[in-house]
Amino acid sequence: MSEPSEHVDLVALSLLPVRCWRRVGALLHAQIPPGSILERVSRECAPDASRPAALRSRAVAALDRAAASGIVFVPWSDAAYPAALAAIADPPAGLWARGNLAALSRPAVAIVGSRAGSPYGLSVAERLAGDLAGHGIVVVSGLARGVDSAAHRGALAASGSTLAVLGSAADVIYPAEHRDLARRIEADGAVLSELVPGTPPRKPFFPLRNRVISGLCRAVLIVEAGEKSGSLITARCALEQGREVLAVPGNVLSGRNRGGHALLRDGAKIVESADDILEELSVRVPGRPDPVGLSGPEDLVLRNLPAGEPCDLDVIADRTGLPSPRLLPRLFELEMQGLVRRVGGGRFVRV
Amino acid sequence: MSEPSEHVDLVALSLLPVRCWRRVGALLHAQIPPGSILERVSRECAPDASRPAALRSRAVAALDRAAASGIVFVPWSDAAYPAALAAIADPPAGLWARGNLAALSRPAVAIVGSRAGSPYGLSVAERLAGDLAGHGIVVVSGLARGVDSAAHRGALAASGSTLAVLGSAADVIYPAEHRDLARRIEADGAVLSELVPGTPPRKPFFPLRNRVISGLCRAVLIVEAGEKSGSLITARCALEQGREVLAVPGNVLSGRNRGGHALLRDGAKIVESADDILEELSVRVPGRPDPVGLSGPEDLVLRNLPAGEPCDLDVIADRTGLPSPRLLPRLFELEMQGLVRRVGGGRFVRV
Repeated sequence: MSEPSEHVDLVALSLLPVRCWRRVGALLHAQIPPGSILERVSRECAPDASRPAALRSRAVAALDRAAASGIVFVPWSDAAYPAALAAIADPPAGLWARGNLAALSRPAVAIVGSRAGSPYGLSVAERLAGDLAGHGIVVVSGLARGVDSAAHRGALAASGSTLAVLGSAADVIYPAEHRDLARRIEADGAVLSELVPGTPPRKPFFPLRNRVISGLCRAVLIVEAGEKSGSLITARCALEQGREVLAVPGNVLSGRNRGGHALLRDGAKIVESADDILEELSVRVPGRPDPVGLSGPEDLVLRNLPAGEPCDLDVIADRTGLPSPRLLPRLFELEMQGLVRRVGGGRFVRV
Repeated sequence: MSEPSEHVDLVALSLLPVRCWRRVGALLHAQIPPGSILERVSRECAPDASRPAALRSRAVAALDRAAASGIVFVPWSDAAYPAALAAIADPPAGLWARGNLAALSRPAVAIVGSRAGSPYGLSVAERLAGDLAGHGIVVVSGLARGVDSAAHRGALAASGSTLAVLGSAADVIYPAEHRDLARRIEADGAVLSELVPGTPPRKPFFPLRNRVISGLCRAVLIVEAGEKSGSLITARCALEQGREVLAVPGNVLSGRNRGGHALLRDGAKIVESADDILEELSVRVPGRPDPVGLSGPEDLVLRNLPAGEPCDLDVIADRTGLPSPRLLPRLFELEMQGLVRRVGGGRFVRV
């Protein structure tokens, strides 16, 4: 009951029906206070669902339950809320996290793929995850069987950080056989969910979860996706969010790579090694030419960020004329150079 | 000694040093008589090499030797000379062929790759070759160990025609272990070389041979090419000649596909099945939408080809404004529809 009322409002927003989330996102982006959003959206968009007061009391209960099981609520308005995720059209009003929140603010790449990965797919996922982790990239995946868990394991084996985004609450580990893996992930990375604690896994949650996986990341790498793989949803989300889509090629006879190859046909970048990914992210790879990345508009971005005035991505995009997919990586770089700091609500401020 | 003198001149042209071949090609394209080309080019470009008279007598000997071993000389000026090959900048002045010349005038696709193909590479090459052959496409390759011979075998297994282009003369089968394969190829397809009978395989002949492989084809498919595979030379020739470059993806851990994946990164089309190739060639594939191919300019091409007036590709390209890579497949289609006929010297005439 000691939670700030804004947190309660944000949790309550996450309890609105899924059909309202884009509207909620638009109003959050417009910096409307969460309490007002809750009143407005539940009136306009979900008049038949629970009233705000009922949602608020469920939110308070959720926050209490979270505290009891070591889960932290990272609200949209918090500086710890990942800037890349804040930038998407339908960002979660908050993230429930167990682990080390510092991992949320570092450059991240998703590695996702088949739950029935072949030895080849698992081996590639594990190796690439380890190599990315070795370059300080956070590896994001969905804790599923197969490629997802191989990616988490690869990052851990390289002593890197990894984020697992669940289709259930952060305290309901699914599949149960990955409980140990989840504990190991929490040591330096985090297990994340937008669902209030106690929520069991349900089919419709997984595609929604996928937009969070891609939203956290600068790029999504597909490893072994068949024609109907759920990881193709993550790839589609990435495209909508303006993130890079990458795919590892493989055997054309097994059918295991049909989805990934279709992405390559449609313009996804082909990945053989972590260097290929780092190049896409404009991270300097020793022995390769400097990426023709986003260093050009440096002055442009800084010039349009007045010191001390937090601006959200749309404002910076308007002022610089740069689309947000190009802007975000540059802002990350400036942040890592200590020239820009992220503040709540997906906003950036010049230091 | 009963050979037409033009044939002798064309064989003599093929005996000029390699550095003269582009010049020879340009003059052939300009419809200069081969005898004049021989005099002119040997004076301008190879004054230190053998004189025309000496080249002519070697040519006569080559034609005699060919006749004795069942090899036919298909001169540039002959209607049987493949139109696609006639269109390249440095076409052979003639092809030495053993087998069925009819296979030279049908739409062809090259399948080339590693001499040390993995079971996966061999299996893919064999399967795709068989599927293409089943659609009436002639499969062209280099009779090498590994992927090349798998492609020939796949076409033969599907009762299709296949062309083997050698880096030695058509009567010097290399590697020797493929003599039986060569005999089987000749039954319905052909073994081809631009080198006079009796020429042994030599290293510099192979990259030159590769331009003939790609030149015969509308598309070149790379199966398992490492970073330094000779098949990448064939791919580069194909690009220079305006032909499609296609590649089959594979394992990223073995290093066997690095060359093919690099081509995909540079814009080659990804191929999983023969349907992908047929689509590229604008061949109708049952169950897939009609390709947005070259059926548009039908009237344009026919309108610019006056009946009874043979035109070469450059002239048709000038008149229609269509680049030759787009023009050639359309001319093949019109030929198959009986609306256009090929005559000597890479020229086309409306029927």
